[in-house]
Amino acid sequence: MIHILSAKQFDRAELEYLMKRAQEMDTIFQSGGTDMLHHQILATLFYEPSTRTRLSFETAMLRLGGQIISETDVTFSSQSKGEILADTTRIIAGYADIIAIRSKNVGDARIASEFSSVPVINAWDGSGEHPTQALLDLYTIMKDFPEVLNDAPLRVTFVGDLRYGRTVHSLSLLLRNFPNISLRFISPDILALPEEYRMQNDFQDEALTDEILTTSDVIYMTRVQKERFPDVESYNAVKDRFLFDGKTVAKMQEKAILMHPLPRVNEIALEIDTLPQARYFEQAKNGVPMRMALIAYCLGK
Amino acid sequence: MIHILSAKQFDRAELEYLMKRAQEMDTIFQSGGTDMLHHQILATLFYEPSTRTRLSFETAMLRLGGQIISETDVTFSSQSKGEILADTTRIIAGYADIIAIRSKNVGDARIASEFSSVPVINAWDGSGEHPTQALLDLYTIMKDFPEVLNDAPLRVTFVGDLRYGRTVHSLSLLLRNFPNISLRFISPDILALPEEYRMQNDFQDEALTDEILTTSDVIYMTRVQKERFPDVESYNAVKDRFLFDGKTVAKMQEKAILMHPLPRVNEIALEIDTLPQARYFEQAKNGVPMRMALIAYCLGK
Amino acid sequence: MIHILSAKQFDRAELEYLMKRAQEMDTIFQSGGTDMLHHQILATLFYEPSTRTRLSFETAMLRLGGQIISETDVTFSSQSKGEILADTTRIIAGYADIIAIRSKNVGDARIASEFSSVPVINAWDGSGEHPTQALLDLYTIMKDFPEVLNDAPLRVTFVGDLRYGRTVHSLSLLLRNFPNISLRFISPDILALPEEYRMQNDFQDEALTDEILTTSDVIYMTRVQKERFPDVESYNAVKDRFLFDGKTVAKMQEKAILMHPLPRVNEIALEIDTLPQARYFEQAKNGVPMRMALIAYCLGK
Repeated sequence: MIHILSAKQFDRAELEYLMKRAQEMDTIFQSGGTDMLHHQILATLFYEPSTRTRLSFETAMLRLGGQIISETDVTFSSQSKGEILADTTRIIAGYADIIAIRSKNVGDARIASEFSSVPVINAWDGSGEHPTQALLDLYTIMKDFPEVLNDAPLRVTFVGDLRYGRTVHSLSLLLRNFPNISLRFISPDILALPEEYRMQNDFQDEALTDEILTTSDVIYMTRVQKERFPDVESYNAVKDRFLFDGKTVAKMQEKAILMHPLPRVNEIALEIDTLPQARYFEQAKNGVPMRMALIAYCLGK
Repeated sequence: MIHILSAKQFDRAELEYLMKRAQEMDTIFQSGGTDMLHHQILATLFYEPSTRTRLSFETAMLRLGGQIISETDVTFSSQSKGEILADTTRIIAGYADIIAIRSKNVGDARIASEFSSVPVINAWDGSGEHPTQALLDLYTIMKDFPEVLNDAPLRVTFVGDLRYGRTVHSLSLLLRNFPNISLRFISPDILALPEEYRMQNDFQDEALTDEILTTSDVIYMTRVQKERFPDVESYNAVKDRFLFDGKTVAKMQEKAILMHPLPRVNEIALEIDTLPQARYFEQAKNGVPMRMALIAYCLGK
Repeated sequence: MIHILSAKQFDRAELEYLMKRAQEMDTIFQSGGTDMLHHQILATLFYEPSTRTRLSFETAMLRLGGQIISETDVTFSSQSKGEILADTTRIIAGYADIIAIRSKNVGDARIASEFSSVPVINAWDGSGEHPTQALLDLYTIMKDFPEVLNDAPLRVTFVGDLRYGRTVHSLSLLLRNFPNISLRFISPDILALPEEYRMQNDFQDEALTDEILTTSDVIYMTRVQKERFPDVESYNAVKDRFLFDGKTVAKMQEKAILMHPLPRVNEIALEIDTLPQARYFEQAKNGVPMRMALIAYCLGK
């Protein structure tokens, strides 16, 4: 049975297949939907709230002609958690054809998959993986740069909090499947990418220079949060380096794109929204066809 | 694109069209539903809880053959609210075909409509507008008095808290489109209709007299809440004037109707429920065909 | 109009009919679903949370081709409760074709049924009835022992907290319709079955002996909760008598089944889950076809 648990589970061939399916699903999505999954049910178990991720999954299932059952109670007891999760999963797997689960406990999605008689999709488990976000991020890049599938070179720069930003970790893992995509990581030292995600050729620095801005095809921005710093001074020392406004974006190539997993606070100024490089709202929307592709894939359609 | 934001946006022709559509939708509703909106999705974003309004919208969409995604989290951050609402709207508009939004902040529905790529329906925004309630109220009146569309005269009396009762404000605006409908406003002085909603010929008084009761075609009752008064004495002085029981209703004409936006507390005695004038439960039910008509209208169907 | 309010409402013929319908629905469920209830809506009003019961009802309706509107707000005011419940029911009955209601107030489902213009199903009302659980329990027994419908003998043993365990009460009522089913009740004295549910021939004891284990066709286990005892000592004195592990189950006949309404805590060891007698997850799953049968029955299908 196919579960979607980690960005690590995909090889190049599988990624190419999923990108192609997402593209097909995009056409279906743009035209409304299909009845492909008529009579099938997706259970969304969100023990950690996330409106946009949950609604993205639910939209995907509805556009495929399926139906939804949903639980969003965040008071799910943490006591004797392991056992309860196993039992809940077995029961819900008796109702639904596929389960999307979100939990703040690392590994919960994998536990659920071990006890489930139907496919399980990890919709984020704590500081762990967020594979469906990584896949929709990859799909967003592929829509603008389809030649990457034929190994054209591409420069992707991650900016901001690369230490705690799980979407950066998962996406960087996926991009490693494309040898001509070069990765650059720009962050304050204390928010640098963890060792386990780095490779020898990666460029890494603290400064978001004009050189970086002008030579990147993709800039993947994340938020630098004050609470990650030991004191206000060290935060103040770097915070302005990681804000994007119209002037910053003006330095980017015209065909380059600016991505962000959202929600943003002030790291991307509103004035950017209408610039041609802004891609974060399309990115969010791309979650629907990508998740349509994943649900269909898991269900063998 | 058509948004439903305010009772002020409708002219007479549009109201007549919507009443006709609601009537057609009523026939569909009574017979179960239609597949007219197959593959279309309504997002209900209720940042202020309201079971009956939300379920009325959702029922309307389901009876049209569409589907629902829903968010009812009331902890929606109020900090940096404007930005978050704009971003959330843009993202949800990427998922759904139409959005119904409820918020306690006046103007939120309009802000959402400015950032949305799909139609937005205002399901109440704070002390502001509640246009879909006003339309279902109008539809309820039209069902009993269809000759009003041909400018037959009608006497509508509003009773109770006319100062804070938003449904009274919105409905009175709609009724101004029918020159032969005369409006009367009965309330304690401190709960009188705000100046902006009054017109020169309106009758206004503090006493719900037998003369009023016997000559009204429609009585629209609202609740007088103790907390609106400066002290208990002033509340006690008026409260009994604004309670309806069997004896009050007996004074109404047989073909007259008694409306109430619900929920009630004690201002309408249970004994009235079975009397021929009671129309408040039908009124609530009329929300379904009226909202079916509005959703179809916004979606160009 | 047919409402499902109490296990007491069913006679033998009706139970046999419902078991047969559940079996037919099981076939439909296993193959995905049907469009039998296209355009029909189930309202799930859960004023007391219960993920698995609510999702079981919703799955049942979706598998029948119907749709769902749902309210799970547990802050439903208890003040002037009676009136609000009556009004809410009348309004929701104007939207939906059938209502499933759960409340912690005994009798709420019956009150709702009195004010509803559509069928009402009691999804548990406080310490009162839980008729749909009793029916799915009966269906689970019938799947393993279909000859019971032809009055073959069967020995059913209830174990644990028989005083507060409402599922035991409701199921025992249903089993009384089958004269050759003998019931045995094993519990600590202070958790014994209330007088009103007992019959003269019932076996009742405090000890779960090997004799009981080896001669039962069905063991229906429930949890013994510490807080039901006057002091820790009296709890400690009995608690180990009412735990099942692999060794306990090994004493059961091979064709016997072990049931539990779930959730469990530690009264059934995880090692049992894979044994042939374990039936509690199938039992939970059986809620779907049983509730499909009940919804169809109420709607005259």
